Amino acid sequence: MTKPTRRQLANAIRFLAADAVEAAKSGHPGMPMGMADIAEVLWNDYLRHNPSNPDWFNRDRFVLSNGHGSMLHYALLHLSGYDLPIEELKRFRQLHSKTAGHPERYETPGVETTTGPLGQGLANAVGFALAEKLLAQRFNQPELEIVDHRTWVFMGDGCLMEGVSHEAASLAGTWKLGKLTAFWDDNGISIDGEVHDWFTDDTPARFEAYGWHVVRGVDGHDPASIKAGIEAALAVDDRPSLICCKTTIGFGAPNKAGKEESHGSPLGKDELEGARKALDWPYPAFEIPQEIYAGWRANGTGTLRQAEWEQLFDKYAVQYPDAAAELTRRSHGDLPEDFAAKADAYIAQVQAEGATIASRKASQNAIGAFAPLLPELIGGSADLAPSNLTQWKASKSVTGTDRDANYVHYGVREFGMSAIANGIALHGGFLPFDATFLVFSDYARNAVRMSALIPAHVIHVYTHDSIGLGEDGPTHQPVEHLATLRYIPNNDVWRPCDAVESAAAWKAAIVRKDGPSVLVFSRQNLPHQPRADAQIGLIERGGYVLAEAEGGSPDVILIGTGSEVSLAVEAKAVLDAAGLKTRVVSMPCSDVFDRQDAAYRESVLPNAVRRRVAVEAGVTGFWRKYVGLDGAVIGLDRFGASAPAGELYAYFGITTEKVVEAAKAL
Amino acid sequence: MTKPTRRQLANAIRFLAADAVEAAKSGHPGMPMGMADIAEVLWNDYLRHNPSNPDWFNRDRFVLSNGHGSMLHYALLHLSGYDLPIEELKRFRQLHSKTAGHPERYETPGVETTTGPLGQGLANAVGFALAEKLLAQRFNQPELEIVDHRTWVFMGDGCLMEGVSHEAASLAGTWKLGKLTAFWDDNGISIDGEVHDWFTDDTPARFEAYGWHVVRGVDGHDPASIKAGIEAALAVDDRPSLICCKTTIGFGAPNKAGKEESHGSPLGKDELEGARKALDWPYPAFEIPQEIYAGWRANGTGTLRQAEWEQLFDKYAVQYPDAAAELTRRSHGDLPEDFAAKADAYIAQVQAEGATIASRKASQNAIGAFAPLLPELIGGSADLAPSNLTQWKASKSVTGTDRDANYVHYGVREFGMSAIANGIALHGGFLPFDATFLVFSDYARNAVRMSALIPAHVIHVYTHDSIGLGEDGPTHQPVEHLATLRYIPNNDVWRPCDAVESAAAWKAAIVRKDGPSVLVFSRQNLPHQPRADAQIGLIERGGYVLAEAEGGSPDVILIGTGSEVSLAVEAKAVLDAAGLKTRVVSMPCSDVFDRQDAAYRESVLPNAVRRRVAVEAGVTGFWRKYVGLDGAVIGLDRFGASAPAGELYAYFGITTEKVVEAAKAL
Repeated sequence: MTKPTRRQLANAIRFLAADAVEAAKSGHPGMPMGMADIAEVLWNDYLRHNPSNPDWFNRDRFVLSNGHGSMLHYALLHLSGYDLPIEELKRFRQLHSKTAGHPERYETPGVETTTGPLGQGLANAVGFALAEKLLAQRFNQPELEIVDHRTWVFMGDGCLMEGVSHEAASLAGTWKLGKLTAFWDDNGISIDGEVHDWFTDDTPARFEAYGWHVVRGVDGHDPASIKAGIEAALAVDDRPSLICCKTTIGFGAPNKAGKEESHGSPLGKDELEGARKALDWPYPAFEIPQEIYAGWRANGTGTLRQAEWEQLFDKYAVQYPDAAAELTRRSHGDLPEDFAAKADAYIAQVQAEGATIASRKASQNAIGAFAPLLPELIGGSADLAPSNLTQWKASKSVTGTDRDANYVHYGVREFGMSAIANGIALHGGFLPFDATFLVFSDYARNAVRMSALIPAHVIHVYTHDSIGLGEDGPTHQPVEHLATLRYIPNNDVWRPCDAVESAAAWKAAIVRKDGPSVLVFSRQNLPHQPRADAQIGLIERGGYVLAEAEGGSPDVILIGTGSEVSLAVEAKAVLDAAGLKTRVVSMPCSDVFDRQDAAYRESVLPNAVRRRVAVEAGVTGFWRKYVGLDGAVIGLDRFGASAPAGELYAYFGITTEKVVEAAKAL
Repeated sequence: MTKPTRRQLANAIRFLAADAVEAAKSGHPGMPMGMADIAEVLWNDYLRHNPSNPDWFNRDRFVLSNGHGSMLHYALLHLSGYDLPIEELKRFRQLHSKTAGHPERYETPGVETTTGPLGQGLANAVGFALAEKLLAQRFNQPELEIVDHRTWVFMGDGCLMEGVSHEAASLAGTWKLGKLTAFWDDNGISIDGEVHDWFTDDTPARFEAYGWHVVRGVDGHDPASIKAGIEAALAVDDRPSLICCKTTIGFGAPNKAGKEESHGSPLGKDELEGARKALDWPYPAFEIPQEIYAGWRANGTGTLRQAEWEQLFDKYAVQYPDAAAELTRRSHGDLPEDFAAKADAYIAQVQAEGATIASRKASQNAIGAFAPLLPELIGGSADLAPSNLTQWKASKSVTGTDRDANYVHYGVREFGMSAIANGIALHGGFLPFDATFLVFSDYARNAVRMSALIPAHVIHVYTHDSIGLGEDGPTHQPVEHLATLRYIPNNDVWRPCDAVESAAAWKAAIVRKDGPSVLVFSRQNLPHQPRADAQIGLIERGGYVLAEAEGGSPDVILIGTGSEVSLAVEAKAVLDAAGLKTRVVSMPCSDVFDRQDAAYRESVLPNAVRRRVAVEAGVTGFWRKYVGLDGAVIGLDRFGASAPAGELYAYFGITTEKVVEAAKAL
């Protein structure tokens, strides 16, 4: 082989993908075969990255929003020189391989974000591009543009049908993300068949309505057309660009190309042989000629690019040493060294002040205290800033030109918000939090799950956490949400009982680098709880003895969270008076409590004490893991109602009296 | 007062709303004051309804998608003569009133759907309009258009920012719903303030991209302009229409009009007084002059309209008695009289056949068996028909012109799908089911919750129900979803263990008229379980003894669902052989089981038997309510992985051996 043609380079993707799917006996060959030519042009001519160092900070970000085409990505990573050897491709979709069915950031070097749930990759990419823009705004100096990279997204019809694509694209337009370029794989096919029966949007017009620059009519199998499309996108820097690429799904497969049959199953031996003939690809499965590798390999140019950037950064560091140090720290995801100590001092101060306030207000106070220590903190709410109390004194909207812009008005777009926040976190340089009412975590549900799965260091703030929000009624009253958010693996859900626990929850969420936290706050005031110094330190263990039984050996244990802790404390007084030695356990975060060693857990909930009552204004089933079959749970297994909060608590029987009754009845 | 002006009629809405919010000390005056003029023109000049009979089948449907403006709706219902007396308006947002904070269908006559979660009202309305179109297609005859009504929606900026508006509007365009008209309350204000910082879409262009007819530039405070807008909409019958109405939020409030301050809080005494002066409304709170009532009251015309329609229907019934009877039955939500018996016969037949198939296949078989009995059944999937197995022999796409069209290709739009299905169900005449992978129930999560809250008779079909889907990996593997769907109140979640339970689950979901059911099916084959006749009948109790311990007095109880029931059955054989008398309980629907009487529950799970092991390929915490602190749960409290299903079960320790071990260790 002499110097390979572009088509031959692209065919390497096609056959790595189709052969890997064939070997795995499952997977999606159609999309990699369809988008191979686009990928080849983008990766070989435009993408600025360093396969030898996937963590180079100023690399371009590439996101495969149609993540079922994962083999496209793995082929690109392998061919261009990432640490993803051919053996891994042969083990596509096998246990402990680096080539999962969908791209998993935590498993595969070079995968920027986990994709598969459609539409969210685009939203992640919007987060990447926003992070880049804001870091550039914050750190760049004339002649020293140390933050200067692009975000590229591949997406299919499925991504564009999903509602989250609307939310993300709308914000990308509003934010004028000129370094974001999306390629629409316009192949006219989805799983149910030809899309004309269920996808008739004029997509270019739709994106223009969002303020995007749209490049129409690219032939996704003609490198010249693809290059022209990318050049057109690069020429417009004040808006994100959508490049509309007509492609054939399963390109090269003699019978299945252009059909749904090539989408989600192995082509089959005969069809694959036919494709080899049709595309003149004589090589056996997983064998790539050296000339092809040579045409792809990007380690050299990548290392050179990184070196050039490092030279630039060195110059920058001389002139702006503090900024350089800050960017380095932030890009590593490290907190300022003194953060923990200062946070603890703040928590102690809140304990000393003893204020009875809504925990959403306590949350705002904590943000106000911690944000000046954390320039990486970037907040936002889905159009509920005055209710979620997510703005603080130094909040500055990202739509402005402030160097220290740190607040995102996401509009009423919960799903887009959380998926964008995931992207911001993954980009690096920022610690994002987002916010809405707890009940509307539903709208963002899968993005919250993705925060935990990816994992991404994101903080989800949810206020108005129970029937305690009152008059807005059952559509707005979360009942099942505490329990269901706790069931997302690797997701720490905090529901503080007062201002002190609220501050401690914020600290815990900030220092937890390996995953997300959900912070749940009340609309209504919560009484301050007294604590000894040692108890303050126990909050971070997720559950602790807030009020001890006389003599330390309880007859009854009451377990509460959030607004219901005060009911437990009141009930303790009544039960103590009735001669029942009662312990109150505050359990702001059962996820963290469950991770404590057995001895600590036993010290809080001694196995021998089975007279246990849990109280929480939500579904009761969750608490059976702590009170068992012989305990009691005071809660609510139905939808709420519209009325003042106090009346609702009485009507649904979530009261001190009911806790007392239940404890006595055990 | 002589004949009131249109403005005076509209002002009645404004002050009923503002005064009710003031009395409740919470609520949203801004939207009712802003949309009052539009509502007045629509309701007095166009809406075809009968306040004396909110259930008249051929009424126009009116949906308030921006449901926080509920007082607008209550004022309209009260003024036009629905059974909603002024006393109820005075009790706005109070316990047991008919005027909840957001419109609740189950509480208020004339409220077609529960709204508040933004964007879903629009999607419900798309479902209403689709149902009307399909019923017209099915039942109308020349000169006998017995199904002929419109769907009107009010929506705000918030609805339009939500992703679900994209999904719903896109489908409405594809389906050419010419009798659907949406009014956009373009007031430029959302909770965070003036929207130009977070909502810059060219909304008219966006809707044109969906294939809608867009009426631009209506002055939402000029009745002539509003009328012209509606006339323009009525003139186009091959596309849905969007009427873009410029309005002032809080219109009439001297200081707060046009500002966020009027959106979500009482105006306050002084501002309300100022509004009375500004709008020349001298009447005290909740006092409406008789002339104003007279200008609104629609009982007479409504009853007349209904009578005219009934005459038409009588003619129809003479010529098409069967169709008339079918429409009547369907519009009442009644099943064919012989449905239950035929369903039971089918279930018995499936038991006799004893097939080992995937439960998703068993589901398809059940659909195939039941659909011919139920012309009201309308199915669909979010672009996963070949995976969810939701199509059957007589499936016909709703985009065609078949009179018996019954299948909706929703595209990749889970949230829109379920919210539309809610609308179809609420319209009447159809029993909708929708479908996606279980993990993507997340995308539809709040619409599933709304099915239960409204409540709507909808069946949500979720396949690929665990790590058993294998290679697609953790993004596609539900782990927490069974538990979290069960925690939605009034939502029956079925996870059948074989083809027999699958058929029984379908029957249960069909006969359950007062709420939704979730049917969860496997990708992989599930072994058939033997049952005596009596056991078959017990499936509908949600949990039952599938395999009894020798002598009926168990040492150990194993509880399983779905694909894990067979592990429990295998474990029983091992444990029996080891001398432990073991009972296997199959628990396909814990929600239904929990509703059984105490004696039945005790007969299945005797309190005295505490050696209990639950096994389910999902989070373990849920099962503590059945096994307590002293039992064991075999499950999975982490995300899955990408590998063949069998390897995953072994890797995560969800095996017969682990069940045996756990039981022995108790």
